[in-house]
Amino acid sequence: MTTIDIPEGSLFGLDNLPYGVFSTPGTQPRVGVRVGDSVVDLAVALGDDVFARPSLNAFMAQGYDRWVSVRARISELVRGEVPAEAVFPVSEVELHLPVEVADYVDFYASEHHASNLGRLFRPDAEPLMPNWKYLPVGYHGRSGTVVVSGTDIVRPCGQRKAPDEAAPSFGESRRLDIEAELGFIVGVPSALGSGVRTEDFARHVFGAVLVNDWSARDIQAWEYVPLGPNLGKSFATSISPWVVPLLALEAARVPTPEQSPEPLPYLRESSPWGLDIELSVLWNGQEVSRPPYREMYWSPAQMLAHMTVNGASSRTGDLYASGTISGPEKNQRGAFIELTWGGKEPIEVNGESRTFLLDGDEVAITATAPGSEGRIGFGEVRGRILPATEAKR
Amino acid sequence: MTTIDIPEGSLFGLDNLPYGVFSTPGTQPRVGVRVGDSVVDLAVALGDDVFARPSLNAFMAQGYDRWVSVRARISELVRGEVPAEAVFPVSEVELHLPVEVADYVDFYASEHHASNLGRLFRPDAEPLMPNWKYLPVGYHGRSGTVVVSGTDIVRPCGQRKAPDEAAPSFGESRRLDIEAELGFIVGVPSALGSGVRTEDFARHVFGAVLVNDWSARDIQAWEYVPLGPNLGKSFATSISPWVVPLLALEAARVPTPEQSPEPLPYLRESSPWGLDIELSVLWNGQEVSRPPYREMYWSPAQMLAHMTVNGASSRTGDLYASGTISGPEKNQRGAFIELTWGGKEPIEVNGESRTFLLDGDEVAITATAPGSEGRIGFGEVRGRILPATEAKR
Repeated sequence: MTTIDIPEGSLFGLDNLPYGVFSTPGTQPRVGVRVGDSVVDLAVALGDDVFARPSLNAFMAQGYDRWVSVRARISELVRGEVPAEAVFPVSEVELHLPVEVADYVDFYASEHHASNLGRLFRPDAEPLMPNWKYLPVGYHGRSGTVVVSGTDIVRPCGQRKAPDEAAPSFGESRRLDIEAELGFIVGVPSALGSGVRTEDFARHVFGAVLVNDWSARDIQAWEYVPLGPNLGKSFATSISPWVVPLLALEAARVPTPEQSPEPLPYLRESSPWGLDIELSVLWNGQEVSRPPYREMYWSPAQMLAHMTVNGASSRTGDLYASGTISGPEKNQRGAFIELTWGGKEPIEVNGESRTFLLDGDEVAITATAPGSEGRIGFGEVRGRILPATEAKR
Repeated sequence: MTTIDIPEGSLFGLDNLPYGVFSTPGTQPRVGVRVGDSVVDLAVALGDDVFARPSLNAFMAQGYDRWVSVRARISELVRGEVPAEAVFPVSEVELHLPVEVADYVDFYASEHHASNLGRLFRPDAEPLMPNWKYLPVGYHGRSGTVVVSGTDIVRPCGQRKAPDEAAPSFGESRRLDIEAELGFIVGVPSALGSGVRTEDFARHVFGAVLVNDWSARDIQAWEYVPLGPNLGKSFATSISPWVVPLLALEAARVPTPEQSPEPLPYLRESSPWGLDIELSVLWNGQEVSRPPYREMYWSPAQMLAHMTVNGASSRTGDLYASGTISGPEKNQRGAFIELTWGGKEPIEVNGESRTFLLDGDEVAITATAPGSEGRIGFGEVRGRILPATEAKR
């Protein structure tokens, strides 16, 4: 048996306890929980085979009461002694995609982001569409290309047409961008023909991850009318490996910004699910933005209620993301197209003037939130750009 | 042992042999092939456990050479004697969703449909967007709500706003519609960072099904800018239970309509994958339309090449649909919004003047194509509208 040391000021204290899927050389991926700088193998520590699987899905499907009781058991366990063979230094494990993603939906819930993108994509029109303040606008993305942090991102190719060009050309994206987002993972499904009320949010959603919704702006701008983004996004979406349970985010709950006009009844919340999460975007190691999640207009409870109000079912493993998190200040914008105003106002990164992503660039997004004791961390979602491989076709 | 009788003129002769997933009372769903009015249990008949599963996915993943050899073995088998315990009358089996759907993408590949919808949704603008003739426009739909033919469709609720209303209201859709489409199912995956060339289409795509992409036009019209359709579609998409192998569609191959401007190189085809498939739309038993698939502007090989040209991977079980199939004639339109011109020109159905779907309505879509001997059938995709259940919230 061994005890687990939690360094002073760790973002992974007993008030966090995020879940992930890990492996060590020569072993199969299985569920672990992060405590300080250690990963605890839950199948071994708790003697429960639901954790001996390569995703969190089976555990998440067991429901809210199990989430509460397992969290309590882990908390008790790691305060005392843990079987030594269940504990690994986080630096020695490989982290995998934590969930088998069912459907992936991406929202557009930051008023600042939606307004900025409206100005950039449709300069001659009102930046916000008439529906934006009535419903959380969103669309389905490609769940098959959701990858775990650390996966290299191959620069996508596709059709691009600048406004001054007569016809599109094919080639690599020249305006490759990020979107710093938060993602929510459904644990308990809801049936076809029913819906999830805002007050039932925490009984369906298991936890949250960081999301980088890589975006090829030139491909997106040409393709997106009238059916929305497709190839400009579908080449890759990265998520962080640690799923922070909603149970760890109670202290982070805050009201959303004032919603006016008042939302329709199915979107009203009896208690708030805004979240005071601070993100940080690092471009080749330099922080270029600090997006504040508390500025998001629509809450994740409202997003889930909206997504299912038409009777659409939800499944264990559904992932839905907030859309780019941008605050009102320039240094709070969660996408480079906003930070550099469409590439027209470069920013300085490590002494160089930069707009969109170059091959070899690396982006990491991190986040922290108030926990019940100190601050808790989401870890990071990181990716590096590799040169296009398919541009010759 | 028994022999299988194929009725004269059957649409399920030896040149069809579609695969499905069936069960009989008290037994587990498993893979069968349809021959005449019989279903042959392939796990029993061929002694191969890959067919003892509740979806076609494992078999489809085995690849093109296996698809060819299994089809040849089935053909040989059913010409001779089959174990009696492997044969069931189709009227006595229950048919299930034939595949575990991975990602679902819906295209918009009929020029007639896209032009009609453009006129109806954006009456003051050019009906076709500038990108339409350069790329197969498409978007991701909700794979979790793909259901098998025969599943009842609960009328969706959501936000709707007529152009003359100041604000949206919540309630049941008043403009519930169908879209008659063909769907293609990926068998062999392609890797992240690569793409599927048009000439490799038949080595990746296993077969085709009929699709009814139920659409709530009032919800769709309000929500779809700028990120595309979401709740107006995500409540349900029905597919037919029999997957017609591409191998059965060789005699149906025809050139697509002339494509001008010439597509970019990655979208060119060395041999055509237009398909001469005749659909029929039955509204409460009365045929109201005969959409011709041969009129589709973009071929399914072009759709797959486009969908992966940015490096997006594809998976076994991916489903992508053509979009509404509409021909140039009024009685060839594959959606009621087109057939009734936005509800302004009702059509007569069983002596009643009708526009959109009423509770209790049933829609069936069927299709046939030339086979190597006679005509082959797709069976049908059928669904009935149940009253909304969630309108009180």
